[in-house]
Amino acid sequence: MQLNEVDTSKNIEAEAWQCLENSILYYRGQPVGTVAAYDSSVEALNYDQCFIRDFVSSALLFLIKGRHDIVRNFLEETLKLQPKERALDAYKPGRGLIPASFKVISVNGEEHLEADFGEHAIARVTPVDSCLWWLILLRAYVISTKDFSLAYQPEFQTGIRLIMEICLANRFDMYPTLLVPDGACMIDRRMGIYGHPLEIQVLFFAALRVARELLICQGNQDIVAAIDNRLPLLCGHIRQHYWIDINRLNAIYRFKSEEYGKAAVNLFNIYADSLPYYELDKWLTKKGGYLAGNVGPSQLDTRFFSLGNLMAVVSGLSTEEQSQAIMSLIEEKWDDLVGDMPMKISYPAIQGEEYRIVTGCDPKNIPWSYHNAGSWPVLMWMLSAAALKTQKTHLAKTAVTIAATRLAEDEWPEYYDGKKGRLIGKQARKYQTWTITGFLLAKELTENPSHLPLISFDKLAPEIVSRACEFEVGSIDPSMSL
Amino acid sequence: MQLNEVDTSKNIEAEAWQCLENSILYYRGQPVGTVAAYDSSVEALNYDQCFIRDFVSSALLFLIKGRHDIVRNFLEETLKLQPKERALDAYKPGRGLIPASFKVISVNGEEHLEADFGEHAIARVTPVDSCLWWLILLRAYVISTKDFSLAYQPEFQTGIRLIMEICLANRFDMYPTLLVPDGACMIDRRMGIYGHPLEIQVLFFAALRVARELLICQGNQDIVAAIDNRLPLLCGHIRQHYWIDINRLNAIYRFKSEEYGKAAVNLFNIYADSLPYYELDKWLTKKGGYLAGNVGPSQLDTRFFSLGNLMAVVSGLSTEEQSQAIMSLIEEKWDDLVGDMPMKISYPAIQGEEYRIVTGCDPKNIPWSYHNAGSWPVLMWMLSAAALKTQKTHLAKTAVTIAATRLAEDEWPEYYDGKKGRLIGKQARKYQTWTITGFLLAKELTENPSHLPLISFDKLAPEIVSRACEFEVGSIDPSMSL
Repeated sequence: MQLNEVDTSKNIEAEAWQCLENSILYYRGQPVGTVAAYDSSVEALNYDQCFIRDFVSSALLFLIKGRHDIVRNFLEETLKLQPKERALDAYKPGRGLIPASFKVISVNGEEHLEADFGEHAIARVTPVDSCLWWLILLRAYVISTKDFSLAYQPEFQTGIRLIMEICLANRFDMYPTLLVPDGACMIDRRMGIYGHPLEIQVLFFAALRVARELLICQGNQDIVAAIDNRLPLLCGHIRQHYWIDINRLNAIYRFKSEEYGKAAVNLFNIYADSLPYYELDKWLTKKGGYLAGNVGPSQLDTRFFSLGNLMAVVSGLSTEEQSQAIMSLIEEKWDDLVGDMPMKISYPAIQGEEYRIVTGCDPKNIPWSYHNAGSWPVLMWMLSAAALKTQKTHLAKTAVTIAATRLAEDEWPEYYDGKKGRLIGKQARKYQTWTITGFLLAKELTENPSHLPLISFDKLAPEIVSRACEFEVGSIDPSMSL
Repeated sequence: MQLNEVDTSKNIEAEAWQCLENSILYYRGQPVGTVAAYDSSVEALNYDQCFIRDFVSSALLFLIKGRHDIVRNFLEETLKLQPKERALDAYKPGRGLIPASFKVISVNGEEHLEADFGEHAIARVTPVDSCLWWLILLRAYVISTKDFSLAYQPEFQTGIRLIMEICLANRFDMYPTLLVPDGACMIDRRMGIYGHPLEIQVLFFAALRVARELLICQGNQDIVAAIDNRLPLLCGHIRQHYWIDINRLNAIYRFKSEEYGKAAVNLFNIYADSLPYYELDKWLTKKGGYLAGNVGPSQLDTRFFSLGNLMAVVSGLSTEEQSQAIMSLIEEKWDDLVGDMPMKISYPAIQGEEYRIVTGCDPKNIPWSYHNAGSWPVLMWMLSAAALKTQKTHLAKTAVTIAATRLAEDEWPEYYDGKKGRLIGKQARKYQTWTITGFLLAKELTENPSHLPLISFDKLAPEIVSRACEFEVGSIDPSMSL
């Protein structure tokens, strides 16, 4: 790097840190979060709020920089917003939920926090991921401070328990996965991710692991037992039924259909005709593989979703071999999945009639834009974390280098459009906080990999995995729940 | 009717009753249900089982004929199959569920019942409707016998309570409707009815009303309060957000999109471009209307689903005006919705690329076949019940007349294909029990309307509706929850 390049790089970083500082949301004099975007040129709409999923990367940076108070305040205040009573009214949020976002409002000169559980959101989507991210963040705080006392406080123990209760509630279907409506996570518009989308399942897996680490067993034996049962089953289910590589594609391609009974191999009755098998035959690399976007009755969504795949690596949901295959695919298909702006939220775009039917003609999700294969800088920190975990640090470094100059020049837009991500997102805000923090966090992680444990999980403890055998795992191959 | 026609008609009926008799399933010497089909010419597969949803029409006929024992045995035995303990293992059925089907198996010379909760079914679909139909049937038994004692037995009170608990469990989303995966009801294959499909919501409404009638309040105050809260909200939600007539279509067509905040009119962010508004403009009659098949984020499924609409009339979920409009639409669009075999399960068929994407290329659900706008004789009894309730008895009579001769000649197939229903279903079994009972029950109902109360519900009691005002109903127009 030339001297003036170093200067530029330092300037960009300094600017990013300043932007993060500007985005801090204060409540009764204390910092409690960061607003979604700080772009004074346009109307705020809901960008003046602190979104739980957006705050994750801010929070990790604050922890790295020793500013634990902001994260602690955030965890305490959002915990207060969690409904603690059983909601009889069907239009009230369920007990245990964490809101999608909150904002500071002033009533008679006094500040209050107003939560949104989706009732204000466009299309009234349900923020299922909020309570999962909240748990992941609580653990990061504990690891960073090496202090379990916050998590052990009775209010926090209750909060963790309530989240587990809503996730582990008595359900209609017999899968270890969570059933959610469309738009229940980062992709918060209709995009064909109803049912059992990968992103939710991966965050659910991480959340179960957090709860297992932080929940005091005494008095919570029922929940702990439920977690211990669920973890290996969920893990085995995803590793087996969501996995796609060329060998698995070959098996699926020759599946028999209409199989009845317990011995069925094509468990979900997938018809090969519904898959773009000819495209995948060309696209899949020899060593590459990934987890499918969704699995359901006669449904196998073969799109690549970055958040789910990267967090599967980070959380230890994928096997070590699968993690290597995922990163190998990203490396070999760099032009498609990363291109000129790390990185695609999904790939490929759904187009034509399929776009119309699956999105309901959403003009924001036109092909190669926004959630429909747009490029999101925030994903860079997950790419870096996954790259570090799989000893592919060079991928993280390359991504940061690609993004740095453009992001600053383009004033930190939320997302980019196009096949290579060279168009600033059609409706993207500028100075989007999680674009800024996604970049900064990726940089911090690559420069100091010792921060990785904040977000990363080891392999599932063998004593938990071994318990999987006590249950009737049905079609799960035992070797897949390791 | 000519004399020889009367003879033919009597012969057909006699044959049908004999077929029903042949289909009775015995368990330890007692009749407990009816098998799905009794076609000795083909392999049984799962047609030797008693499906809960299939048995409903058999059961109503048995009640009408005073053969209460079969229905009582069925209710008692299926109740024993309901899991009573909290299932920690994610691959076990949830507490409160009623299986999709059961069969008699012999172990060491002793008979046992083996339940299937979806784990044997093609594509592993979840039978959410079973527990709802079970409640509806329990009430029919009580009404028919004028004896509450069965329902008041402790085991039955527990059973009702457990069904209510799984239905009213703490949930992620904030709607009064039930979230289910694809294929959770009579349409048990992927057909775009994931999320909040009409059929499930209507049966849920009826089930809530049954539980409210049969559950002893003492000791169940929490459940009763939850039902009282849910009923008017669910009712208002469906009447308002699912309703389609030409006025409503006009409003939807001119919806603004991307509305943020509580004042949003286009609550679900529906884009008019996603609707076949030009077709509906032509198809909708002046006085006709119906309930949409599904409502979700950016999703309004404008297909007409018969079971949901007919049972909405029968259960009192639709307003009296809406019920009249639904029956008026069926009458005026007879050729489309009834044709030569009462009646279409859905209309119109999804075709071309949409068929491929929505069904996952299901060869059984090709356009105008099976669930994809096929004709199902079993629906005749619901058509008759709805017709009686709205004083349109002539519709029921016409339907029965149309069906009679053909059904017998064609050996009672499960379904018919084609736009008018003149092709025997491509993969239809013969001697399908619910085809036979759908015909017989329709005939019984039209000949003796005094049987209607077995399945029909009065208007929601005003004291329950009035309680709706105690809750924040959000965007529900109070006039719609009457």
